[in-house]
Amino acid sequence: MSNLPTSVEFHEEGPREGFQMEPTTYPLADRAALIDALSASGLKQIQVASFVSPRAVPQMADASELFAAITKRPGTRYTALWLNDNGFERARACEQVDLDGKLMFYTTEPFSQRNNNCSVAEMRERQLGWLDRYIALGIPVEKAYVITAFGCNLGGAVPLSAVTDQVRWLVDACADRRVPLPAVYLADTMGWAHPEEIKRRVGAVREIVPQAQMGLHLHDTRGVGGANVYAALQMGVRLFDSSVAGLGGCPFAGHTHGGAAGNICTEDMVFMCQELGIEAGIDLEALIEAARLAERIIGRSLSGHVMHSGSLAATKR
Amino acid sequence: MSNLPTSVEFHEEGPREGFQMEPTTYPLADRAALIDALSASGLKQIQVASFVSPRAVPQMADASELFAAITKRPGTRYTALWLNDNGFERARACEQVDLDGKLMFYTTEPFSQRNNNCSVAEMRERQLGWLDRYIALGIPVEKAYVITAFGCNLGGAVPLSAVTDQVRWLVDACADRRVPLPAVYLADTMGWAHPEEIKRRVGAVREIVPQAQMGLHLHDTRGVGGANVYAALQMGVRLFDSSVAGLGGCPFAGHTHGGAAGNICTEDMVFMCQELGIEAGIDLEALIEAARLAERIIGRSLSGHVMHSGSLAATKR
Repeated sequence: MSNLPTSVEFHEEGPREGFQMEPTTYPLADRAALIDALSASGLKQIQVASFVSPRAVPQMADASELFAAITKRPGTRYTALWLNDNGFERARACEQVDLDGKLMFYTTEPFSQRNNNCSVAEMRERQLGWLDRYIALGIPVEKAYVITAFGCNLGGAVPLSAVTDQVRWLVDACADRRVPLPAVYLADTMGWAHPEEIKRRVGAVREIVPQAQMGLHLHDTRGVGGANVYAALQMGVRLFDSSVAGLGGCPFAGHTHGGAAGNICTEDMVFMCQELGIEAGIDLEALIEAARLAERIIGRSLSGHVMHSGSLAATKR
Repeated sequence: MSNLPTSVEFHEEGPREGFQMEPTTYPLADRAALIDALSASGLKQIQVASFVSPRAVPQMADASELFAAITKRPGTRYTALWLNDNGFERARACEQVDLDGKLMFYTTEPFSQRNNNCSVAEMRERQLGWLDRYIALGIPVEKAYVITAFGCNLGGAVPLSAVTDQVRWLVDACADRRVPLPAVYLADTMGWAHPEEIKRRVGAVREIVPQAQMGLHLHDTRGVGGANVYAALQMGVRLFDSSVAGLGGCPFAGHTHGGAAGNICTEDMVFMCQELGIEAGIDLEALIEAARLAERIIGRSLSGHVMHSGSLAATKR
């Protein structure tokens, strides 16, 4: 019918995206139990925590302790987020983190300043340092994120050229160093994307780096997340970041009404892919159990759907 | 890019779908105020209530009083649901209802019994009576619903032929009476549809009645509602039932975990259409205000997204 991929990969971001935005810090044992429940579902990659300023994000101050508390499952990578050299060195020092060589680019000055305390150009220059550091340490460069690639609550509309310029610059930087660029992720950090724009921007970036896989980091801020995933699938995209139970949202994204800024919901999207005949390599029922555990830990109803309605497994049998 | 329509129509079902499933009956004045807020957004059709058994659905016992309490806006039709002759006669007797000549077909025995207390075949035969009654009263036949057209929690998978058989039968019945069939709606009453199945079933029904408009009544039970709307838009579908704030869900649908069975959310889908450049004829900001009013009336956080995040109107300006 269309150009859907035969398999997809969801990288779980709930533990980091979800708990960083909560006003309280939840017990470490609860967070470790959630991560273990997530890995039991077969997720291949889980972002456990961020190594960022404990002053800015106190919920993530115990990132190293959390890594130590996880029961690691073979076949699952346990990754972390860092935004600067200091964070990367803390992640390295932790020794428990599966270090994925990632790069990050901004598209608007106000969000670059607010999230990373530097200008768009400064962040870009810093990526040369990250690149060289990864190469020196033997960490393969794995992916680059273009943040707020569809629009920004603080900076407004983001022209396509703001995205493609960063990608072109990075392609040159990688070529200079003779390292491949395996994947480019477009992040809809604040839920501005719509399905046709997903197609347009994925297509435009793919023209620049046809050899790289395209990935998407999507938020379901305005109820269009599922449609955006479907549009991406139609473009053959097979890498997605997502959050169990729809947890998450960036604390610095500046939404006007506070709520509903979560990532696309892992189990809902796994459900959709399964229904579409696309292999996600996930035990959906186990993932739903993890989502319900997340709800019990957070202590309020979360935005995931399948966790409340149940999948169709029992009824279809 | 694709075959998207230039305009769409959302028919609001929140007042009926939303309040029928709540355990308590909310004050009539609140419900009337919500309907007035909805009409102020420019919605062309609002289903106000159902004329069904007050024993089965006590929340709808005051349907006539509710119709009397609305401030009617020119340009908005105020419709109602009925499931049998008795309900239709009550709707007629109310004299405030914009009577739309609609027909209803089931696809599975258990849901037909549970929702309508008759078999699939009996319901179909009854539609001949409804048809003749509409014709006798000068009410144009407007649309036919195929209920649980994608699957049924009680009856399991629904083969495509169960849908197309009903449509073919109806086409013959209309031809016999020389009345046109302007629209056929496929109802995903329990959230079984996925985007490719939307395309397949819309395409199959359209082959049988190419002259009829296709409509969809979708529930976002499993988080795939938005993707289903986008798939339908790609098929050129321009008629959708939806609920403000994502209210709703059928009390007899038999979901295992109770929650998240609501209809697709009107303001989220209007937002998506606007972003896609599709005219919905709605003042989105006014609709968001109506959604927030619904949340205040219901007294708990509802599942709509744009009502919590805000639209992009202010940021894009």
